[in-house]
Amino acid sequence: GEVVVLRYGHRPGRDDRMTTHVGLTARAFGADRVILPDNAGQSAETVRGVTDRFGGPFGVELREDQKAIVRNWEGVVVHLTMYGERIQDVEGEIRAAVRADDGRAVGDRGGDARDLLVVVGGEKVPWALYERADFNVGVTNQPHSEVAGLAVFLDRLFEGEELDREWVDADRRVVPEATGKTVVDA
Amino acid sequence: GEVVVLRYGHRPGRDDRMTTHVGLTARAFGADRVILPDNAGQSAETVRGVTDRFGGPFGVELREDQKAIVRNWEGVVVHLTMYGERIQDVEGEIRAAVRADDGRAVGDRGGDARDLLVVVGGEKVPWALYERADFNVGVTNQPHSEVAGLAVFLDRLFEGEELDREWVDADRRVVPEATGKTVVDA
Repeated sequence: GEVVVLRYGHRPGRDDRMTTHVGLTARAFGADRVILPDNAGQSAETVRGVTDRFGGPFGVELREDQKAIVRNWEGVVVHLTMYGERIQDVEGEIRAAVRADDGRAVGDRGGDARDLLVVVGGEKVPWALYERADFNVGVTNQPHSEVAGLAVFLDRLFEGEELDREWVDADRRVVPEATGKTVVDA
Repeated sequence: GEVVVLRYGHRPGRDDRMTTHVGLTARAFGADRVILPDNAGQSAETVRGVTDRFGGPFGVELREDQKAIVRNWEGVVVHLTMYGERIQDVEGEIRAAVRADDGRAVGDRGGDARDLLVVVGGEKVPWALYERADFNVGVTNQPHSEVAGLAVFLDRLFEGEELDREWVDADRRVVPEATGKTVVDA
């Protein structure tokens, strides 16, 4: 099963940093790839650059047809929105919906868990997205940040296991320490 | 015990949205107040406006003396940085450091738990901050987003209890639902 983050909508200039942070957050918190709108080329470059330096695998795609991607997704669609059901109420149900018949959980790469599309709104999203989504999920029902919502959603989806992920083909690696800023060759 | 988020550094224009999202994320995920640099007035207004409409209590302060706030903090200082110790390794220790002698946890308002300052870097932070911090914490040791790191840190600090917080003096309230966008008078 694959976990894919779709950034819905992007205003060049104004949204560049938020869209970049959506991509970097998807990578850091265990998604397999991010799909950005085709006018977000600069954000895509930044996320690819981080993947080159700090490792993957992580895919970055630019696509024009966001509506069609959502409509035709053959798997589970989660839409993060402050109007949705409370994450603490539905996270177990989402994991169950994605889990493979053989019991492999969402984070098991190569298992036959279902694919999961996580849609993160930018500008206004169409009502059809609310209807197509298998789950409209509120990571709190308060206004805050699509980046914050995505991070907490993924951390809960993977039950923290994404934090132990190992990275391949990295040039460099940060050594976690109590006081320091140490980066070594990977 | 009070939980306060300090945004360290702000470049007007370029950082407006990120600083606003830091403030809104602090509010939505259970902090008591946020301290922003004094050149971030626009972000402060936005966060105050959300608090007026969606409730509090939540404080927003503009302060010039960020270095002094950190240096003189009489409680625990956590600095979020990708170079820090892994959140999954130190979150229990942080909760223990903040917990009151009477066993009240960090989220217990009015208990005598210690105050916690969570420092979120923007521009480069001084080395003195790494030294003063009781904990330098990496929410992953990967480059991503200060907003994502703050959200996941607070969700783990409060062990999810912040999601059940009730808001007072709100004008309006979102009704969580499977498919809909319902806002009612609070």
